[in-house]
Amino acid sequence: MTTISIIGSGNMATAIGTRAAKHGHSVELMSRNPAQAQALANQIGHGATAGTYGERPAGDIVILAVLYAGAIDVVAHFGDALAGKILVDITNPFNADGSGVVTTPGNSATQQIAAVAPEGARVVKAFNTIFGGVIAADQPVDLFFAGDGAEAKAQVATFLESLGMRPLDTGGLEMTHALEWAGILLVGVARNGAGFDIALSAEAV
Amino acid sequence: MTTISIIGSGNMATAIGTRAAKHGHSVELMSRNPAQAQALANQIGHGATAGTYGERPAGDIVILAVLYAGAIDVVAHFGDALAGKILVDITNPFNADGSGVVTTPGNSATQQIAAVAPEGARVVKAFNTIFGGVIAADQPVDLFFAGDGAEAKAQVATFLESLGMRPLDTGGLEMTHALEWAGILLVGVARNGAGFDIALSAEAV
Repeated sequence: MTTISIIGSGNMATAIGTRAAKHGHSVELMSRNPAQAQALANQIGHGATAGTYGERPAGDIVILAVLYAGAIDVVAHFGDALAGKILVDITNPFNADGSGVVTTPGNSATQQIAAVAPEGARVVKAFNTIFGGVIAADQPVDLFFAGDGAEAKAQVATFLESLGMRPLDTGGLEMTHALEWAGILLVGVARNGAGFDIALSAEAV
Repeated sequence: MTTISIIGSGNMATAIGTRAAKHGHSVELMSRNPAQAQALANQIGHGATAGTYGERPAGDIVILAVLYAGAIDVVAHFGDALAGKILVDITNPFNADGSGVVTTPGNSATQQIAAVAPEGARVVKAFNTIFGGVIAADQPVDLFFAGDGAEAKAQVATFLESLGMRPLDTGGLEMTHALEWAGILLVGVARNGAGFDIALSAEAV
């Protein structure tokens, strides 16, 4: 059991926080809106707490459960409070019609976040290729992730396993742009007949 | 049973041709090197034949099983011989180290092929998110595809189903760039611990 800090109070913060709490983790919620953070902590239960937005998170793993449009500003706002933390970027920088991403190779959302993160922080992308409803279903599921730092990735993988997810390492920070396109692929297949109760996975053949 | 024409005689041509022939399709092989096409036809058996490179393919579905570097030239070379055909682009336009693709949004390999294809041809991307060895294993497997033209896509889906594959429609021609990045993702996850006996899929949750 570890402490997980989640910045955000929306759909994904709720789904990840609820699953983490169910699986025995201490969950700290941090939101620009303190009342929302407290309400979500109460909803999640299992001892979940509301932290103070902008102050140093309690968890070694900090999940940035905010929209891409605000993610870089959030990291910059927290600044040195995130030093030494493992930041988990879950953003999907989709364009307006969901046919592509607004990021470019070598400058993924994750790479942009890494560029503003304080020294000693390590950034891993995960949870962007899975629907919130699928996280909430709390079933065994594959989850793709990518990022730099073997130790940080190992800690994220251990966290994912603790949630009943199979972590699938896809590579270093340069692979996070491929994960952003995988978010597009997931939505594409869901919209074109497969429906939203699906998870991208890598089946053994 | 239908006739499937395959342009190419490499690893993917072999894997797709062999699986198609095993599942009852007539397979025509076309290669710049006629001896190679004939040798592959002999190897595949089940009545597979060698066609003449550059002439009109026998199949309604024509699989471009060539490398991205040559694919546009091949389609231009065939020219009007491909009029009215369903062209299946299987290419992965990877960069040198496999960390990304050399194509750009709105100008995927598939879109480049569509731009030089003759009138009435329809281009669908498929088989670029699956390893040749997995095709050869002839097991049930998911396969992502994308492209324009409901009828063309339905025919490709029927063909995939006949091979024991579950076709997963991901969208229109604009989605083919996401499939190109999915090729990168597949290789990334294979290289980072999952191994090459895997298939990208969309599991029900």
